[in-house]
Amino acid sequence: MTSLAPSELAWLLLSLGVLLATTRVCGTLAKRVGQPSVLGELLAGVLLGPTLLGRVAPALYADLFPATGGQAVAFSVLTLVSIVLFLTVAGLEVDLARLLARLRVASAVGVAGIVAPFAIGFGASYLWPAAFGSVGAVPPFVFALFMGTALAISALPVIAKTLIDLDLYRTDLGALVIGSAVFNDLIGWTLFGLVVGLFREAGPGPVGMGTEIAITLAVVALALTLGRTLALRALAWIDRRASDAGGVVSFVICVAFASAALTESVGHGALMGAFLAGVVLGGTIETSPRRLLALERLVAVVFAPLFFGSLGLRVDFVANFEPLLVLLVFAIACLGKVLGCGLAARWSGLPPSEAWAVGFGMNARGAMEMAMAVVALQYGIISEQLFVALVVMALATSAMSGPVMKRLVGRRMRRLFLAHLDARTFLPSLLGAERDQVIRGLAQATAPVAGVDPAVLADAVLAREAIMPTGVGQGIAIPHARLPGLAQPVVALGLSNPGVDFGAPDGELARFIVLVVTPEHDDLIQIELLAEIARTLQNPATRSAVAAARSFEEISGALRSAPARGREHPDDDG
Amino acid sequence: MTSLAPSELAWLLLSLGVLLATTRVCGTLAKRVGQPSVLGELLAGVLLGPTLLGRVAPALYADLFPATGGQAVAFSVLTLVSIVLFLTVAGLEVDLARLLARLRVASAVGVAGIVAPFAIGFGASYLWPAAFGSVGAVPPFVFALFMGTALAISALPVIAKTLIDLDLYRTDLGALVIGSAVFNDLIGWTLFGLVVGLFREAGPGPVGMGTEIAITLAVVALALTLGRTLALRALAWIDRRASDAGGVVSFVICVAFASAALTESVGHGALMGAFLAGVVLGGTIETSPRRLLALERLVAVVFAPLFFGSLGLRVDFVANFEPLLVLLVFAIACLGKVLGCGLAARWSGLPPSEAWAVGFGMNARGAMEMAMAVVALQYGIISEQLFVALVVMALATSAMSGPVMKRLVGRRMRRLFLAHLDARTFLPSLLGAERDQVIRGLAQATAPVAGVDPAVLADAVLAREAIMPTGVGQGIAIPHARLPGLAQPVVALGLSNPGVDFGAPDGELARFIVLVVTPEHDDLIQIELLAEIARTLQNPATRSAVAAARSFEEISGALRSAPARGREHPDDDG
Repeated sequence: MTSLAPSELAWLLLSLGVLLATTRVCGTLAKRVGQPSVLGELLAGVLLGPTLLGRVAPALYADLFPATGGQAVAFSVLTLVSIVLFLTVAGLEVDLARLLARLRVASAVGVAGIVAPFAIGFGASYLWPAAFGSVGAVPPFVFALFMGTALAISALPVIAKTLIDLDLYRTDLGALVIGSAVFNDLIGWTLFGLVVGLFREAGPGPVGMGTEIAITLAVVALALTLGRTLALRALAWIDRRASDAGGVVSFVICVAFASAALTESVGHGALMGAFLAGVVLGGTIETSPRRLLALERLVAVVFAPLFFGSLGLRVDFVANFEPLLVLLVFAIACLGKVLGCGLAARWSGLPPSEAWAVGFGMNARGAMEMAMAVVALQYGIISEQLFVALVVMALATSAMSGPVMKRLVGRRMRRLFLAHLDARTFLPSLLGAERDQVIRGLAQATAPVAGVDPAVLADAVLAREAIMPTGVGQGIAIPHARLPGLAQPVVALGLSNPGVDFGAPDGELARFIVLVVTPEHDDLIQIELLAEIARTLQNPATRSAVAAARSFEEISGALRSAPARGREHPDDDG
Repeated sequence: MTSLAPSELAWLLLSLGVLLATTRVCGTLAKRVGQPSVLGELLAGVLLGPTLLGRVAPALYADLFPATGGQAVAFSVLTLVSIVLFLTVAGLEVDLARLLARLRVASAVGVAGIVAPFAIGFGASYLWPAAFGSVGAVPPFVFALFMGTALAISALPVIAKTLIDLDLYRTDLGALVIGSAVFNDLIGWTLFGLVVGLFREAGPGPVGMGTEIAITLAVVALALTLGRTLALRALAWIDRRASDAGGVVSFVICVAFASAALTESVGHGALMGAFLAGVVLGGTIETSPRRLLALERLVAVVFAPLFFGSLGLRVDFVANFEPLLVLLVFAIACLGKVLGCGLAARWSGLPPSEAWAVGFGMNARGAMEMAMAVVALQYGIISEQLFVALVVMALATSAMSGPVMKRLVGRRMRRLFLAHLDARTFLPSLLGAERDQVIRGLAQATAPVAGVDPAVLADAVLAREAIMPTGVGQGIAIPHARLPGLAQPVVALGLSNPGVDFGAPDGELARFIVLVVTPEHDDLIQIELLAEIARTLQNPATRSAVAAARSFEEISGALRSAPARGREHPDDDG
């Protein structure tokens, strides 16, 4: 057999077209109802797979997606190429240099985020393999190792997208979460390579295991040192010579295929090599998303949907849905991740809400875990029931991480604003109708709290105001300044009944005047505070409550009950 | 068998990486020596195939590119998906609406460009099948039909690239050549579908043949009418709803796969359907190259090299190279195309050099013809020797079409410039060192030839000059104006020994001053003349010869012997 028979070829092409079309439609619908598109893509596979199409039109299903024969081989290779490209692009987003710079914090959370869920997953499935529907033929150690790894991995794209939606991607918290997740992915894929290697060795004998661990570590270490050095030189060389980005795209794909071939040939599966290739090549100017746009776009539009759609084709999701198993996997997954990462983040010095936001952020699984699950299913490491439970868990943790993080971080931001407000700096009835006069009044109240001279404070704010007035519209003005010698930001809120002209773009007089002074060298806190104040007061209900407040307790309550953010239905992409 | 064995998978991934890398390197080298990159990509396959690697390292070759088994099936499916996407993108470049608008001229050349080479190819191979190495089992009629079709097809991308390099893409000549080639492709792929259909019917019985022709025509007619209407509506609908181009990309690929599946299932091969899908979807705002950039880029960087590289893997190009057969195929191919298209273009009223440029432009084969040849080889319609001859012919005709067109069109352009110069308007010694004075002198000489009042002419040129001076650097100035009532452009060339300040960007005084007046409503001729004059005089040797000329005969000779264009090594992409 050298090629497909014409009829097989026709069915294969048709099945690709049908699968792509269905994933696109379902993915778009999922986004429209506020769910990640990967949910819809997976659902498309379920509709076309044994779950639905296999029941209502078994002949058509067998023609489109036969279980054996050349067409099945060709289809499985196409989905493998798809996931190889997907993991490569995922790896490309890893900025190794930045990750290493943040190693201390990232590693604390990252290690905990691996160790805790891994330990819980490993322990539970090693002790009670039957509860997880372990397949008898699989050595318990390998099965437990897989479960630990699958529960320990997290979904970088989901997390990154959530952080971007929250405008937190470039903040310290965002960098921490991303760094941890990347660290987590790297260890996760390394462990998964080990699982595949051990399983193929058909038994975790102490010698075989030592060899496998040595191979795994050697591959990763070589890739990140020598491989990285060579890759950076090659990229720079190609980029100097090429007239367009085609050379770099071609190089990335060649390295990805070669690396996947290498890890596959040493017995650790193609997926580990694909991800590693992405990590080795990523985070450079030559492989920036802008330069590799064609590859990233086509992966997002064609290859990722093909892969996620193909997941649903493998298994009957209704017949293999065991509620108890699904619940067990979900509970254990959340327990390990949220607790492990959250506590580690707490110990690293993050305040509680941020720490739990990190925990829930890291809790998102998704593509990575599903890719592991499907390979494990193909090899026969896990049962179809466990596969379904793992996929459901991946979807559920991804879907919940965004909203929960938003809630936690939204609360943190309101507290940040409130934390710097004070009974002494709340002035329910500002005197005067002139901008200078109002600012001097606020400065008078703020200076003792900030521990600075009132005249110095007022002059700094007025100097800033002279450059550009700080009215932001809707009756809000946020005069501000940075001051040397300040330990903490101080916020003062004054209400003006007649309103004061702060040169707002909409021409409205400012009735809510918030004075913000921040330490001289901390740019970020000022930007965050100004953004948070503007966002909070732009909510009409909050403005009404604030306008009615006559005491610090009332203003406190009004701000505390304000909604966290304006956007509540971001387009999460998993 | 449901998927590949791990070792097969590793070799498959490695073979893809190696093939991509080799095609990239060879393609880049080919471009560097002024050849189309497709030549290098094909050569890469020859190096990795039975011709070289199969000889020097047969074991490695057998591992990388086995002839049978699951890995071979998977590889052949990947190359098929590649050519399907390549042909779809090629079809997308077809602008049906514009093609129909130019149907009269396009169809004359297009029909001749199909009929003449088809007739010669069909006749020769039907009469002397043995000379073409016909395989005995193939019905002579089918074999001749294939040869006619393969010789009748031309290479749109090569032609388009050549025209773009010549800045002729948007001219009437360019539109004529492109229109003819597109028309030619559409008929060619339709005929090829018929060949495949007839061959699969295993005998051109009159009933079978009638059915096949009816099916072929029905598919094309339906696609271009109902299919086109539905596709345009669907594209507009998707584009209105989608937030990015992903929806359209996804739709294009789905339609391409479905269409390829359809033509494959009716027995006419996937390639016809892929091209037809491109044509049906092409030429709209939604499928403009800018919008489908990601798809087109990845096809150019990944899929096209994979396909062209795979050609060389199929056959030993040394053992199967029969010089006489190669020469015969090449001669017959050129005879039919150049003569057929050239004569048809002459009869359509084009002047000789343009007509022969059309002929040589249409003579370029390339991707299309190679795709046909490889499918014919797979089906056993042609021998390996004939396959090699057809591939060599495709490369040779592609490689020669650019230079020959340039020569022919370059001559035309020089004649254009010279045609408007006159013994009366050549002034070897301009008087004066002031711009106005020099212009008035040239206008005085030009006005009688143009049949206008010298003062009117001078005023128009000076008015234009006042807006922005016309010195272009290197001692050249091209004052110009458009005049009402002018029937023909008139060009005057004056040489100034001291030089005149025409405000050139390099600060040089103008010693070559060319006055150009053109009819008021013909924008194109003015732009073409100005560009041609600047290009011609920017050649240092030409400038020396012109500067030394003392008579119209001498200046004529100097301009006639000037090289056609500055760029002689464009980056042709086949």
